[in-house]
Amino acid sequence: MMGSTAARRLNINNINPHVKAAKYAVRGELAVKSEEYRAYLQRGLTDLPFSQVISANIGNPQQLDQKPITFFRQVLSLLENPALLNYEDVLLSQLGYKPDVLERARWLLSKVGSVGAYSASNGAPAIRQSIADFLERRDGFPANQADIYLSAGASSGVNTLLHILCANEKSGILVPIPQYPLYTASLSVLNAKCVEYHLDESRNWGTDVKVMKEAYEKATSEGIDVRAIVIINPGNPTGASLPEEDIRAVIEFAREERLVIIADEVYQTNVFIGEFISFKRMLRQMQKETPGAYDYVELASLHSVSKGMVGECGHRGGYFELVNFDPEVQAEIYKFVSIMLCSPVIGQCLVELMVNPPKPGEPSYALYKQEYDGIFNGLRERATALHKAFEQMEGVECGSPQGSMYLFPTITLPPKATEAAAAEGRTADEFYCMRLLKATGVCVVPGSGFGQKDGSLHFRTTFLAPGTEWVGSIIKFHKEFMDTYR
Amino acid sequence: MMGSTAARRLNINNINPHVKAAKYAVRGELAVKSEEYRAYLQRGLTDLPFSQVISANIGNPQQLDQKPITFFRQVLSLLENPALLNYEDVLLSQLGYKPDVLERARWLLSKVGSVGAYSASNGAPAIRQSIADFLERRDGFPANQADIYLSAGASSGVNTLLHILCANEKSGILVPIPQYPLYTASLSVLNAKCVEYHLDESRNWGTDVKVMKEAYEKATSEGIDVRAIVIINPGNPTGASLPEEDIRAVIEFAREERLVIIADEVYQTNVFIGEFISFKRMLRQMQKETPGAYDYVELASLHSVSKGMVGECGHRGGYFELVNFDPEVQAEIYKFVSIMLCSPVIGQCLVELMVNPPKPGEPSYALYKQEYDGIFNGLRERATALHKAFEQMEGVECGSPQGSMYLFPTITLPPKATEAAAAEGRTADEFYCMRLLKATGVCVVPGSGFGQKDGSLHFRTTFLAPGTEWVGSIIKFHKEFMDTYR
Repeated sequence: MMGSTAARRLNINNINPHVKAAKYAVRGELAVKSEEYRAYLQRGLTDLPFSQVISANIGNPQQLDQKPITFFRQVLSLLENPALLNYEDVLLSQLGYKPDVLERARWLLSKVGSVGAYSASNGAPAIRQSIADFLERRDGFPANQADIYLSAGASSGVNTLLHILCANEKSGILVPIPQYPLYTASLSVLNAKCVEYHLDESRNWGTDVKVMKEAYEKATSEGIDVRAIVIINPGNPTGASLPEEDIRAVIEFAREERLVIIADEVYQTNVFIGEFISFKRMLRQMQKETPGAYDYVELASLHSVSKGMVGECGHRGGYFELVNFDPEVQAEIYKFVSIMLCSPVIGQCLVELMVNPPKPGEPSYALYKQEYDGIFNGLRERATALHKAFEQMEGVECGSPQGSMYLFPTITLPPKATEAAAAEGRTADEFYCMRLLKATGVCVVPGSGFGQKDGSLHFRTTFLAPGTEWVGSIIKFHKEFMDTYR
Repeated sequence: MMGSTAARRLNINNINPHVKAAKYAVRGELAVKSEEYRAYLQRGLTDLPFSQVISANIGNPQQLDQKPITFFRQVLSLLENPALLNYEDVLLSQLGYKPDVLERARWLLSKVGSVGAYSASNGAPAIRQSIADFLERRDGFPANQADIYLSAGASSGVNTLLHILCANEKSGILVPIPQYPLYTASLSVLNAKCVEYHLDESRNWGTDVKVMKEAYEKATSEGIDVRAIVIINPGNPTGASLPEEDIRAVIEFAREERLVIIADEVYQTNVFIGEFISFKRMLRQMQKETPGAYDYVELASLHSVSKGMVGECGHRGGYFELVNFDPEVQAEIYKFVSIMLCSPVIGQCLVELMVNPPKPGEPSYALYKQEYDGIFNGLRERATALHKAFEQMEGVECGSPQGSMYLFPTITLPPKATEAAAAEGRTADEFYCMRLLKATGVCVVPGSGFGQKDGSLHFRTTFLAPGTEWVGSIIKFHKEFMDTYR
């Protein structure tokens, strides 16, 4: 007689405790709730106080308004169905394809074969070479295709780098606070230490090497083996864009303390104030200025097709470049990425298109430029409009938009709101964001999801959503919220 | 005065030792060497003893001869460039698209929005529903879209499941030997225990529950907390296809010892002998036959677009279904996959096309059927031809091809070959495979890359490459090798 076993093998208390401990608020309770509302509205129900859900919780441009760039998608359509290339006349004369679209598709197909085949584990060689050429043009210093690793979005690249860096539970990584929670979540899963250093809100979320040093020294005194420092530039969630002197100071700090630099540069084209300066360019510049001094400063810099004017998150394309790394360590990185075989090949091709877009004089250039500039200007206008709205809201402070896709305002809430939040078992910022969602359908992420100084409250919102209605609904909600809890 | 730091921060001796310990021979030394030869030949050099490299080391159909299925790629081309849908007449009358292609593309676009947008972390809801419908048709038992998780190929799904299952260094997973090295490599990275159970070569690599029990009991007696059992059916590298009684026996064993079953079923359509029976169908059948007895047997079954007649490895599409899992554990799985945001959306769409292909009577059906059957028959013919070649080779024994994309012959080599291998610091099978590559350009994987009984030698080869010339070159090489070392 067979009895039923008492219970399942896996339960919340015996699975991997490091996975359980990981937090990822960008897709947490608020995001799940917002998807429930979206499904509810799609069923045609109209008894909510809003008629649409605005997902301002995540930098997902094409879920909102952003249109893909025509050149990119035309090329991808030919890669998916190369048989179309047999109809050159039809493509050119009837379907709006330009000769350079066909040429690029043919070139990519000649290099990758089928986009349905695995590529080399670190990416198709010709695509890595095209990225190296881009980096040389961007930085004015040589780049080697063998140091470039294609990845499934930058997230996967960060995952790879942290897997190599974290040797045991004493390994520590300096991470900015506030930060994109990929870093804390991945370190949690790896059972390594997140060593927090705070960004300086009073300087529009700039970096302060003094603060980094203090964090480093405190961690070291506690027996943590601090191995690397993460810099997100332009910042997420803050939008801050680092000036040259800050980048130099970080490199100098990394040299002194022998830290690997992980430069998350996925927002490198989303810069409204000043210009983007890559860590690679600055490191090579410093190597040139003081020969020998920086040759062992290891840098991994990441980029992605998900952000910028490309905004192709769903294609999961990205890469990282390693600078000054030990070849034996690179061989281990290659082996690690090979376990997952390769990143999506169509995403790799999109990386190639991103780094090598149509040039002036080429048939697709005019439309590309028009689309690219239109997206850039649209983002800046929305950022400015949202910033203006925050300026007029009681207890809300927010620096001028500098870059990335986010604003990260401070909110000062009345004590009664904090009490009401505590009664629900929530932090005050979670409470505020949940009320905002329920009242307006606008989903943002509480500052606690990114880390913030004790006693301060923030939220992160993208400025990707079109129109001004949603901004108006935030203003109205905020006023009512303050009136209720004042 | 700034001095140069003494050395880089990272070296082979201080990176993550668990990454360093991982082995992944499918893309190891032989594969790297074969790519060098390929690049050499592409430069037009002709002093090698072969004129092309045959990558029989990896199941990568479209790198070799396999053409993508037209319906799939036509739909994907429209998803990448939805503007084409404005030219319905041109598509239908001039470009060979059928109405059901346009209809499917419109439906998918209505569900995912842009393929450039992130989907829900576990995949687009409509695609999960389509997979659930497929599973119901396949198994005759209900499936719930909420239990389905899209992944970047099955590899990424295995990675997720092992991350949840392995709580600490005592956690153990039963893995078949020989096995696809994804399992051993991932367990190494996770610092968990691979508990090996040997497949029975004398029964064409069938499973033997007695052997599983012995491995389980030995591991348990050593303090290992054995949590799950991996079954690869049809087998990789062995090609074995499990009969119903073996599947029932494994489920019974899992019930008795409270083990989660991980059923790697990516080769479910690559079956030449008998029929594929899913673990899900068998488990539900046993739950029905003996109510209550199997309700806590947890099963995760995986599938992929990379294999079968689809063969779209480069698109990194796949999914797993969870059966009888605790909802709290599923919530942790959702959180874990959300850290990497989502799997490639175009790959998700391809999963949908795979599980819901054109049906009889629909416009694209005839061509789809013709292409599908052509690939299936081609694979069977190649498997048979290769098997026949092995039969005539001295010291080579190989069971009849049953399924998957591989043959895994035993090779018996003369003692002098073993000595020559040892002198090079290689195992005899590595030595043999390296010689084969150098002589013929054919890249296979030594049995030691998958695990084999002590004293036995094997290699794994795909039977994907077209033509017979490469098979002839193996026969010729083998004869010469045996003559040299006899």
